[in-house]
Amino acid sequence: MLDYIAPVEDMQFVLFDLLDAESEWREMAAFSEIDRDIARVILDEAGKLSAKVMAPLNQSADAEGAHWNDGEVKAPTGFDEAFRELTQGGWLGVSGNADYGAQGLPKMLTASLEEMFWGSNSALYLYGTLTVGAAICIDAHASDDIKSTYLPKLYTGEWTGAMALTESHAGTDLGLIRTTAKPDGDAYLITGTKIFITSGDHDLAENIVHLVLARLPEAPSGSRGISLFVVPKFLSAGTRNGWSSGSIEHKMGVRASATSVINYDDAIGYLVGEPNRGLECMFTMMNYERLSVGIQGLGLAELAYQNASRYTRERIQGRSASGPLNPDGPADSILVHPDVRRMMLTQRAYIEGGRALSTFVGAALDRAKWATDAETRQASQRIVDLTTPVVKAFLTDRGHECSVLAQQVFGGHGYIVENGAEQIVRDVRIAQIYEGTNGVQALDFAARKVLRDGGVALGDFIELMRSDMGDPELSDDLNAAIDRLESVAAWLVEAASNDVELAGAASVDMLDLFGHVAFAWLWSRMSAVAPENEFGARKKMVARFFFDKLLPKIYALDAQIRRGSRHVMAYPEDAF
Amino acid sequence: MLDYIAPVEDMQFVLFDLLDAESEWREMAAFSEIDRDIARVILDEAGKLSAKVMAPLNQSADAEGAHWNDGEVKAPTGFDEAFRELTQGGWLGVSGNADYGAQGLPKMLTASLEEMFWGSNSALYLYGTLTVGAAICIDAHASDDIKSTYLPKLYTGEWTGAMALTESHAGTDLGLIRTTAKPDGDAYLITGTKIFITSGDHDLAENIVHLVLARLPEAPSGSRGISLFVVPKFLSAGTRNGWSSGSIEHKMGVRASATSVINYDDAIGYLVGEPNRGLECMFTMMNYERLSVGIQGLGLAELAYQNASRYTRERIQGRSASGPLNPDGPADSILVHPDVRRMMLTQRAYIEGGRALSTFVGAALDRAKWATDAETRQASQRIVDLTTPVVKAFLTDRGHECSVLAQQVFGGHGYIVENGAEQIVRDVRIAQIYEGTNGVQALDFAARKVLRDGGVALGDFIELMRSDMGDPELSDDLNAAIDRLESVAAWLVEAASNDVELAGAASVDMLDLFGHVAFAWLWSRMSAVAPENEFGARKKMVARFFFDKLLPKIYALDAQIRRGSRHVMAYPEDAF
Repeated sequence: MLDYIAPVEDMQFVLFDLLDAESEWREMAAFSEIDRDIARVILDEAGKLSAKVMAPLNQSADAEGAHWNDGEVKAPTGFDEAFRELTQGGWLGVSGNADYGAQGLPKMLTASLEEMFWGSNSALYLYGTLTVGAAICIDAHASDDIKSTYLPKLYTGEWTGAMALTESHAGTDLGLIRTTAKPDGDAYLITGTKIFITSGDHDLAENIVHLVLARLPEAPSGSRGISLFVVPKFLSAGTRNGWSSGSIEHKMGVRASATSVINYDDAIGYLVGEPNRGLECMFTMMNYERLSVGIQGLGLAELAYQNASRYTRERIQGRSASGPLNPDGPADSILVHPDVRRMMLTQRAYIEGGRALSTFVGAALDRAKWATDAETRQASQRIVDLTTPVVKAFLTDRGHECSVLAQQVFGGHGYIVENGAEQIVRDVRIAQIYEGTNGVQALDFAARKVLRDGGVALGDFIELMRSDMGDPELSDDLNAAIDRLESVAAWLVEAASNDVELAGAASVDMLDLFGHVAFAWLWSRMSAVAPENEFGARKKMVARFFFDKLLPKIYALDAQIRRGSRHVMAYPEDAF
Repeated sequence: MLDYIAPVEDMQFVLFDLLDAESEWREMAAFSEIDRDIARVILDEAGKLSAKVMAPLNQSADAEGAHWNDGEVKAPTGFDEAFRELTQGGWLGVSGNADYGAQGLPKMLTASLEEMFWGSNSALYLYGTLTVGAAICIDAHASDDIKSTYLPKLYTGEWTGAMALTESHAGTDLGLIRTTAKPDGDAYLITGTKIFITSGDHDLAENIVHLVLARLPEAPSGSRGISLFVVPKFLSAGTRNGWSSGSIEHKMGVRASATSVINYDDAIGYLVGEPNRGLECMFTMMNYERLSVGIQGLGLAELAYQNASRYTRERIQGRSASGPLNPDGPADSILVHPDVRRMMLTQRAYIEGGRALSTFVGAALDRAKWATDAETRQASQRIVDLTTPVVKAFLTDRGHECSVLAQQVFGGHGYIVENGAEQIVRDVRIAQIYEGTNGVQALDFAARKVLRDGGVALGDFIELMRSDMGDPELSDDLNAAIDRLESVAAWLVEAASNDVELAGAASVDMLDLFGHVAFAWLWSRMSAVAPENEFGARKKMVARFFFDKLLPKIYALDAQIRRGSRHVMAYPEDAF
């Protein structure tokens, strides 16, 4: 049974002890009414919802899956009520624009709420999170008319949102899409077929609002000829728009989430943003989703850890190498075995590090939007740009790794469906793929975020790390790690000027290297501010485990990067 | 569609170019009639069976699953005929004892056959491979009477075998089992419940032969009080023995393989080997199965690679960083992207390295049994003992890694069930768990195989590697890698004398380190003997990719090991 208890204590530690959220909020007018007590109430309420409403449906909904009957899509049993609790509690509008009825809470705080919703029931939350992303995109780019029609309904979850980007021949390379938009008065007629549309159709909302990428007549070819349209399921109450659900996918995981093929047949759509600038508008949504999907990896890792942790407390097997520790029982706890501890501590180190990073990026997002001086806003935006692909890829890769480790802790029992560990592995796998595969994130990081400005933004981040090295006991190791990152980055900037393939060949290793060093920095800072109590003592121990057993991966990554692109590119294409 | 084509060309390269199988076979009387031509015919025939009979059922059988109806277990549609082709072709008896009707082929050769059967349809082969293991165990430990009753039927697959070890509270720690055996004339009455019995019950064979671990009355407690029994389903035609199938498990993968709970209720069993020495006898079977399961990881990685490889040949997306390579098309092949190449080459490097290692260990097994001089037999047995846990754990961990990479190559399409990539990820996951989890393998390697003799067996292996360094172009890197292994091992032997937890804390990293260095050695040798043609040129390129992008992992492993056990063990048990 996949019980879930929101890690509220650790979330508060990250918010208030590590990142001093109260000072942050005091300095921004938008958040002047939020303090630690209010945040605690919000975290507790979201925790209750995730534990009592969302988590109990996680396994049954996976077993049942979403249903497709002759064009009608139905969510699994229980989702209707649970989704109503999620939306009527206002949880989809927590970080949205207050002018349209949302609550405008700091991203720094809502990152923790997202972690709870992803962790307790990813499939259910998928019906909600794309709604949030669609609202952000509409808020940033659409006309006032569209905003006032759609935003209030989206924030309350009466209507939900979806992104219709991918076509069967065009995923990563959206420049290849063929869906067309023909002007028709103030509106457009959209025609084409889109696939992989998460929550594209279902029975949980009155209306479903698609953000669709399509080409205007005579639009330039490639990615500069794509426009964005709002295409609702119902044009008004009872009047269906011209699109239909072709089927839903059978997937490895998140099977309770309906992933649709949608056929648009002269469906009426309304332009969002400028013609041919649709991809830029869509990126507003995608950047939100990328952060959120990174947090999905984190939330599912936490769920996997909690499940494994319950098992380790009950399971006895074998004896401690130092002699029986449970001499009156037939065997010792499996936690006497160093390798079981390694698996459990690896999860903790990546989960708690991931929570720190995602909250840190949330804080940077808040500052980028609300800080009073322009310089802080710009510096914060550079941090967001640099770290967004890292949160997406590094946290989902670690989420997968942690979920596999959690499953492994169970031995054979972890392979049995009823246990739940295997579902988490299946569910988290999508987070490494959708919203831009982790390979695409890594290329974005290495080529656009690091190399394009010659390493300047990365240099700023390194300087930021050096300005607060955290625990003096860990600072030698941390210094060495930061030096190594700096040195590899300098090498990469230099070498890439003579090798166009290098960014791609080094990209995944480079992102992993940055992720491990950033985690080391956050762990050292967490160790430094850990309170003088049991919680704090444990925090310090996990920090040391991270430095001993996980940070050394950077030695390998460093060497792999410096070996360059040559033997990646040499192999002939037709020999694969 | 999970098409599978047996990689016969590469298998022959490993057998004849790398490991000079013909010389090996000439020196052993048992194999004097086998040569390259005969081996080729056998490989081709097994390749046809796997491609045309086994692979076509792989996905449909997974979708259907094994059936349990009120105590009767049924394999999926088509398995009956396919299993008959597998058994009637004599494929289960290929390496068995010729005195009882089997073919006694070299393990070095049959390792490749196993790879094909695992790769083309793991679930189907599971109905066969435990039969082979049971036969090996009976051949080694049972009375002549039992041998002549069971072996001929097992080798032909008319009867199949199964291992009944695990109980719900006792998996890794078999000393805890509670199943009892009460003497009853020449036989014993077995009572208890066993779980996780692969192929424990099904409808593919006339009879099913369980090897059951149970306790005799007054047996010493723990692992020295366990005895082994043969417990068939039918005592004679039509006469059921006293056991029944309680249920079958719902599993993450290999869903077409029936994994049974079996209730023994005064079932008649016959003792195999000495009383209370059952675990030793069972290890004969388990060591066979461990090698075989390692090869399962390899076979499934090959299947995953082939599936991804077909996709890369069709899929176009984006443009080369060096400018369009397919200027007349709307996009370039995804193989222009360095990171797609990295994912594909990583698979090749681990797969072809794994094929070399498993065949190398097969050759050592043959020599351990058949070499004319005792010293060679003993030295070869030490290699087998050292490398068996490595093949099991390293090849299945890499099999999982490769399957995940292959799925990743597909982007979103890899998450869709019909594509097949996700099934491989689900299927291969069990290979890291069963037959002793990979953590147990690592502990066996570090504590029993490396530390117990103070590093002598490992030192012999290092000497063996140094005696043939392969390609001079790679020898600096190889030398450095071997030095590092030697130095870490010496440190470990020294440090472990003062730290009982160190072996466990370093075990997984130590096995990974050894695996990477052994692969580097085999890759350098493969590069050295690669023929002067297209095949050989590609082999050399993959070797260089391995040295550039995968071997550097040893730098991280080295550092992690040397950080010791302290921060693995410090964390309090009740805080997990």
